Amino acid sequence: MTNLDELCINALRFLSIDAVEKARSGHPGAPMGMAVMAYTLWHKHLRHDPHEPGWPDRDRFVLSAGHASALLYSLLHLYGYPMPLEELQKFRQLGSMTPGHPEYDPDTGVETTTGPLGQGFANAVGMAIVERWLAARFNKPGFNIVDHYTYVMASDGDMMEGVTSEAASLAGSLGLNNLICLYDDNNISIEGSTDVTFTEDVGARFRAYGWHVIGPIDGLDADSVDMALNRAKSIKDKPVLIVCTTCIGYGSPGKAGTASAHGEPLGPEEVTLTRHNLGWKWGPFEVPPEARDQFSLVKEQGRLARKQWQAMIEDYAMQYPDDAGRYFRQIEGNLPQGWEESLENIEKDLVKPMATREASGVVLNALAQTVDNLMGGSADLAPSNKTIMKGAGDFNRQDYNGRNLHFGVREHAMGAIANGMCLHGGVIPYVGTFLIFYDYMRPPVRLAALMGLGVIYVYTHDSIGLGEDGPTHQPVEQLMGLRLVPGVVTLRPADGFETLEAWKVALKRRHGPTALVLTRQKLPVIDTATGEKRAVDKGAYVLWQSGKEPELLIMASGSEVNLALEAGRQLKDKGIESSVISMPSWELFNIQPQDYRDSVLPPGITRRISVEAGRSLGWQRYTGTEGVNIAVDKFGASAPWEQVYQSLGINVDNIVKAALKMFPAGDC
Amino acid sequence: MTNLDELCINALRFLSIDAVEKARSGHPGAPMGMAVMAYTLWHKHLRHDPHEPGWPDRDRFVLSAGHASALLYSLLHLYGYPMPLEELQKFRQLGSMTPGHPEYDPDTGVETTTGPLGQGFANAVGMAIVERWLAARFNKPGFNIVDHYTYVMASDGDMMEGVTSEAASLAGSLGLNNLICLYDDNNISIEGSTDVTFTEDVGARFRAYGWHVIGPIDGLDADSVDMALNRAKSIKDKPVLIVCTTCIGYGSPGKAGTASAHGEPLGPEEVTLTRHNLGWKWGPFEVPPEARDQFSLVKEQGRLARKQWQAMIEDYAMQYPDDAGRYFRQIEGNLPQGWEESLENIEKDLVKPMATREASGVVLNALAQTVDNLMGGSADLAPSNKTIMKGAGDFNRQDYNGRNLHFGVREHAMGAIANGMCLHGGVIPYVGTFLIFYDYMRPPVRLAALMGLGVIYVYTHDSIGLGEDGPTHQPVEQLMGLRLVPGVVTLRPADGFETLEAWKVALKRRHGPTALVLTRQKLPVIDTATGEKRAVDKGAYVLWQSGKEPELLIMASGSEVNLALEAGRQLKDKGIESSVISMPSWELFNIQPQDYRDSVLPPGITRRISVEAGRSLGWQRYTGTEGVNIAVDKFGASAPWEQVYQSLGINVDNIVKAALKMFPAGDC
Repeated sequence: MTNLDELCINALRFLSIDAVEKARSGHPGAPMGMAVMAYTLWHKHLRHDPHEPGWPDRDRFVLSAGHASALLYSLLHLYGYPMPLEELQKFRQLGSMTPGHPEYDPDTGVETTTGPLGQGFANAVGMAIVERWLAARFNKPGFNIVDHYTYVMASDGDMMEGVTSEAASLAGSLGLNNLICLYDDNNISIEGSTDVTFTEDVGARFRAYGWHVIGPIDGLDADSVDMALNRAKSIKDKPVLIVCTTCIGYGSPGKAGTASAHGEPLGPEEVTLTRHNLGWKWGPFEVPPEARDQFSLVKEQGRLARKQWQAMIEDYAMQYPDDAGRYFRQIEGNLPQGWEESLENIEKDLVKPMATREASGVVLNALAQTVDNLMGGSADLAPSNKTIMKGAGDFNRQDYNGRNLHFGVREHAMGAIANGMCLHGGVIPYVGTFLIFYDYMRPPVRLAALMGLGVIYVYTHDSIGLGEDGPTHQPVEQLMGLRLVPGVVTLRPADGFETLEAWKVALKRRHGPTALVLTRQKLPVIDTATGEKRAVDKGAYVLWQSGKEPELLIMASGSEVNLALEAGRQLKDKGIESSVISMPSWELFNIQPQDYRDSVLPPGITRRISVEAGRSLGWQRYTGTEGVNIAVDKFGASAPWEQVYQSLGINVDNIVKAALKMFPAGDC
Repeated sequence: MTNLDELCINALRFLSIDAVEKARSGHPGAPMGMAVMAYTLWHKHLRHDPHEPGWPDRDRFVLSAGHASALLYSLLHLYGYPMPLEELQKFRQLGSMTPGHPEYDPDTGVETTTGPLGQGFANAVGMAIVERWLAARFNKPGFNIVDHYTYVMASDGDMMEGVTSEAASLAGSLGLNNLICLYDDNNISIEGSTDVTFTEDVGARFRAYGWHVIGPIDGLDADSVDMALNRAKSIKDKPVLIVCTTCIGYGSPGKAGTASAHGEPLGPEEVTLTRHNLGWKWGPFEVPPEARDQFSLVKEQGRLARKQWQAMIEDYAMQYPDDAGRYFRQIEGNLPQGWEESLENIEKDLVKPMATREASGVVLNALAQTVDNLMGGSADLAPSNKTIMKGAGDFNRQDYNGRNLHFGVREHAMGAIANGMCLHGGVIPYVGTFLIFYDYMRPPVRLAALMGLGVIYVYTHDSIGLGEDGPTHQPVEQLMGLRLVPGVVTLRPADGFETLEAWKVALKRRHGPTALVLTRQKLPVIDTATGEKRAVDKGAYVLWQSGKEPELLIMASGSEVNLALEAGRQLKDKGIESSVISMPSWELFNIQPQDYRDSVLPPGITRRISVEAGRSLGWQRYTGTEGVNIAVDKFGASAPWEQVYQSLGINVDNIVKAALKMFPAGDC
């Protein structure tokens, strides 16, 4: 470690300290402890070009310990990304580029949103998966156009979270040799020493997962970190964990090695003492010119590397124009031409009674033919979720060319890995499980929405209609739960046709997540008898109307639409004119123009019934407080599904009865 | 293994097979593979008395692989628990005692609800914690009145779930020597062999956690299992994992060792072949008399063991009457006399501006003085959650006498461990984290509700009011998400006083979970100026009314109540009479008599505004479709909290403006 290196490392530390100090809020300890690791990685190993943050073959850098955000912003600033010093001075302020935890921004080099611990680690596994897949697909002899590492820096907290365990176990099983994790082992967490709660041997744990483990090394010594990274890159068959022993708040005489360095500013006095202790003679936000020069050096190296790659890919495009065309289309996130038309062939296969999960499987397999970068799988429920693309091969350590992923019983990691896949770019990821297990993967779904990632969730077994497996497996609150997450579009189709339309919506939505909510049980084809288009993309539409002047609206989604329709018909026989509305997606409906919404739900009709095998809470938005909500407001039961439906009152009779009550005798 | 043992083992297998076959639904493969393990454990090791399923010093048996429910019901039936054969014949039918996955029933010996994988394993850790704590508290020389094991049977799926990793790591750190896990290592999961997704060395992983690991042993050989269990019980400083190599669907010629044995009946033909193969000559649901006798033998041993314990505890009660009194009060789940009165002293400490998390810390510490079995902690956020009971000691491997738990950054395991603590009996568990991280622990909260467990959740930093940490840490949909779970009571108090009342509600609710939703930021004392009681226990109450004939209702919860109140006052100055309603708990309000609800929300007043720093979806239940919801329907932002509130429009001005719009000029 040269004096110049040390100067640069301290520049990172003090920019971070100063940002936290100015904000009077933040986490100084982690940046101070991780600065050596970060500097060594960025300076000697990370292949990136700050002029072109989006260069597809750049190494990915994930700061899983997102609370160390000030360190990331300092790195971005000093290495010449579009991250001005003023933004560091506005750390954690409204509208700044430097929020409390890193937020995905491809233009400034922030590869993913982190903070909720463990997410970044699992994102990195997803990035590494896509890199291996693209490499297997596109590299040719002499043309390693896809050949980069994913580096992730993780803290004790990341290592304690279950999502990390799940992702690490899968990464080991897959032998992802392009994934390197620097583990900041500082033995401190917020409640103090990790002695009480975290005495495990993390290195041994990762060896058990099938990782190559280096260390513990001195994470405060740049040469040790450099050697470890060189060694890591020489490992050709496994992901690598480098255990780096460090010290939280390194350099602070009063707070180093203590939990108090973690989550609050050091305070002016301690900052002064730290400056003195580390021999730092520059003022707040000052960077010595020698350090700036040193950082610029790497920037130039990065530009050269990128230009070399650019030259290579141009040659590649000459020799392999088709591959190059596909590569760029996939990397740019464009859908292949004709994908939508190709679905017309399967419409006939959907005009029969079938579970919507079955219909989804049919649509997925048709899509898989044209959308050549659709890649996904299930958390060990593929045969039930119908998520297998036949003939598309499995992605495994023997063959990275397949598109079917097997996540194991790891829903949380699956969600976070899908985010990483999307973030890397090049594929359209989908993941499947039972709707109830959305509960196991809420955090990554939320982060997909926050980042605007086009992940597709295939949630089957969507209600008490799951039947015998019982209340532990029957979702009641999960459907409404999805609707609560800002930015998620949830679709619950009513039959095969609506499922087809729902998949189209999902595929087109490349800047936000889409959840498909599908039945286990068989459903009839909804016979509208009008021949009109099913306006699934508008979120809700009038499916059937018994007369010109309906006096009642019956709204339903998914498996309850056919009940609503039958009730409407029975009511017509009793002289009540109604309109039956299929509402596959609230989010899509709510953004329609007012006149469309009013045409579906005429404001003058206040007699309203909702039917959905999930919680009623929320439906009052459409039915008003005077409406009736036929819903499931308690846990389900283990029995054949028809009996569960009957016992919980989700049936045609109850809809009819509720409607009749709205029309006192003689009123109709 | 004697012939008689084999007969008994096959009796377990075929009862399970027959139950699944009759139901035409279920999981035969796991019971067939695990029968040897289960029989050996129950026959030679498990200390229990089927006549007294609630015997407090019984060993606990947790079937984490809940899909093997038929095995559990077969065990309960054959060992003489109140589980008649007819119930096995009604497996997975409506209203039976034998639902698809085991559901907690203390009367029949079902120790916990399992099925969602990993939950049972973590429950077992919670049970073991309470056993160690009670032993440390109550055992005396010569009186080991608390001295039992917790046994858990887990599958590959359990081992893949992150929650198991979290719980196992904590159990290792705590050195829980009373916890023994039998791991059914059969290399098969639903998508097929575990080769693709789960190649890790589970034994090595658990060694890394600090467990003692035995095996792999032959899990199909009773003697091997017996020896391993004897060895496990000789380990005095660590939890023990026994890796048992087994075969899913053992005995089925056509399906053994394949995924097809997992989740569907074998089918009549395969059942016949299996009977032949295992030499089973009895008919469906028939149990050979010799086997019945053998099972009864153990039942008698259990009764004797329990009687010995009974005699011991009677002696204990003579020598240590105070301890015995406390022990029984705690085990029976009764609160100590005078706990509520003791809180009167702290009221004065709450009449000042403070964050409700601070108030919660004050209340908790007062409660800790009298409620001597309040036990809990945080997922590494205790200083922020204010969840430490001062002077109550830490629970750690050096001293199991403490009441403060440190869960590490493991929210999911924390929730599931709290369930196990409650299930064991003897303590009142509470757990804390930021409200956003409820997302990391949704499954155990749901299971607490399903089981009716009195776990208390302390969720702080409950909105965008969290400020600088930004949108990754600011809950938006979590508060409504809690309200969606049937059986959870959620309370969001508005100041210190309401926080005190909320804690009282939580403590009294011993048969269902309660979530306390608390602010990070300081709140003013709500000055009602009426001196009336704060009816937090009724869920909602009129806080303030500007005149006798209000024309407008303003409803709010928690940190928004003071905004509503201020808006009400400003509106009065503008000539608008309003009623301001504090709504700390929807669930409690909804169960009040209609006349109370109408007194709070008079049906005649249709001008209604809700104010809450969370999603609006759901509020229409109270405001109707014509009301205004001042809410947060998108993700937050990183900035000082006052600015975030302003930028998202959660302020007095917006309430006033919304109200004025409801009164066209001249209308008031």
